Amino acid sequence: MAAAAPPPLPTTTPELNMDLPTSHPLFTRIRLATRLDVPVIHKMIYQMAVFERLTDLCSATEPSLSTTLFSKDNPFESFTVFLIEASIKPFPSSSIAHHPKFTPTHKTLNLDYPISDPESEVFKSSTMEEGVIVAGFVLFFPNYSSFLAKPGFYIEDLFVRESYRRKGLGKMLLSAVARQAVAMGYGRVEWVVLDWNMNAIKFYEEMGATVMQEWRVCRLTGDALQGYATTSGTKNDIDLI
Amino acid sequence: MAAAAPPPLPTTTPELNMDLPTSHPLFTRIRLATRLDVPVIHKMIYQMAVFERLTDLCSATEPSLSTTLFSKDNPFESFTVFLIEASIKPFPSSSIAHHPKFTPTHKTLNLDYPISDPESEVFKSSTMEEGVIVAGFVLFFPNYSSFLAKPGFYIEDLFVRESYRRKGLGKMLLSAVARQAVAMGYGRVEWVVLDWNMNAIKFYEEMGATVMQEWRVCRLTGDALQGYATTSGTKNDIDLI
Repeated sequence: MAAAAPPPLPTTTPELNMDLPTSHPLFTRIRLATRLDVPVIHKMIYQMAVFERLTDLCSATEPSLSTTLFSKDNPFESFTVFLIEASIKPFPSSSIAHHPKFTPTHKTLNLDYPISDPESEVFKSSTMEEGVIVAGFVLFFPNYSSFLAKPGFYIEDLFVRESYRRKGLGKMLLSAVARQAVAMGYGRVEWVVLDWNMNAIKFYEEMGATVMQEWRVCRLTGDALQGYATTSGTKNDIDLI
Repeated sequence: MAAAAPPPLPTTTPELNMDLPTSHPLFTRIRLATRLDVPVIHKMIYQMAVFERLTDLCSATEPSLSTTLFSKDNPFESFTVFLIEASIKPFPSSSIAHHPKFTPTHKTLNLDYPISDPESEVFKSSTMEEGVIVAGFVLFFPNYSSFLAKPGFYIEDLFVRESYRRKGLGKMLLSAVARQAVAMGYGRVEWVVLDWNMNAIKFYEEMGATVMQEWRVCRLTGDALQGYATTSGTKNDIDLI
């Protein structure tokens, strides 16, 4: 959300306007990530930690992500990552193998200004298509509503790289998850937001989400969680209550 | 949490105390639920909705729970239910088939007063063991922390039937999930609580959980979610931003 504001429009005469390009197309694609994408996913998770000033909590490594996030090739049934990729040239048709569970979606944006991406080399797509750059990702997995007796999706992370922010890519990623939920007959898509992040809250409400004010997230982690390792549940304890 | 307070202790002389029973043992067992347990799980979900005054939001039926909750016999990898069962007699050893992924845990409580359970017939265990009654359940499933690069568990429901409340059964269910998380090398157990439910918050904090004050849950559901069905992502849209 720290994307620089675009420069002011140049002062031009009507004649000169004729010569100016009217738009800069940006071709985008959303596809399922695979184990090959772990290096760029890891870099984006770290950038997200920097943005949230939580790098001390970020212990993810490429090997640990590879093992835990892609241990099962079971998208939508378990942990799932959509990548959004961008290119200033059209994507070659059928340039990547389609996953049987998801056909990549394409959208062309017409930007007023070209993208300036100083990290384009680092974020080259694992598909090796020329000029295709990873611009963001969404990480989600199934959850369950017992009242609805239906699964849903929970979005753990939604991240767009700085050079690509404020262009609708976050909305495209969130919409892709919502569409997938509807296609699967699921009942809900949920995620969390920081209560002071008014821009994000406004964005989510505009997308149709309700921000639930009364619920608080409880978390058992670290030493407090490890403490349960020593509590044997297999012996026949007799406790007074 | 609406369990009646126990009656006051009778005023007795030391002599009379000798004749009073000092405790009422309650034998408990936590085991994995199966499709056979759907009828009692459904009843408990409905009782939970009554307790939360949300019956209008509860559309779960036995068939819909059976289809969505037990479509895969894949505990801990997907939606998982632990039942806590109670009996005034010891459980027969090896009375039920053990699931390869979870060995039932036993604990004996010594209560000051016997349990009075007017619904014991309705909540008989599907194992058909004599006198074994389902007293509560916890429904949970894997979630994922990208910062830790580790799965965790998310607890959707934790419910103890009214007759069995305030005896430590909720803590036993939550501890069972925490122990399972540690055993699997998972990094977190999370759930949500209503911000005005001070008793629950105190209970969770005593169990080692942190209540995170800044996060709000966002939910996209109902018509707002269904609206995304009509947004095709497969065509090559050209949008101005």
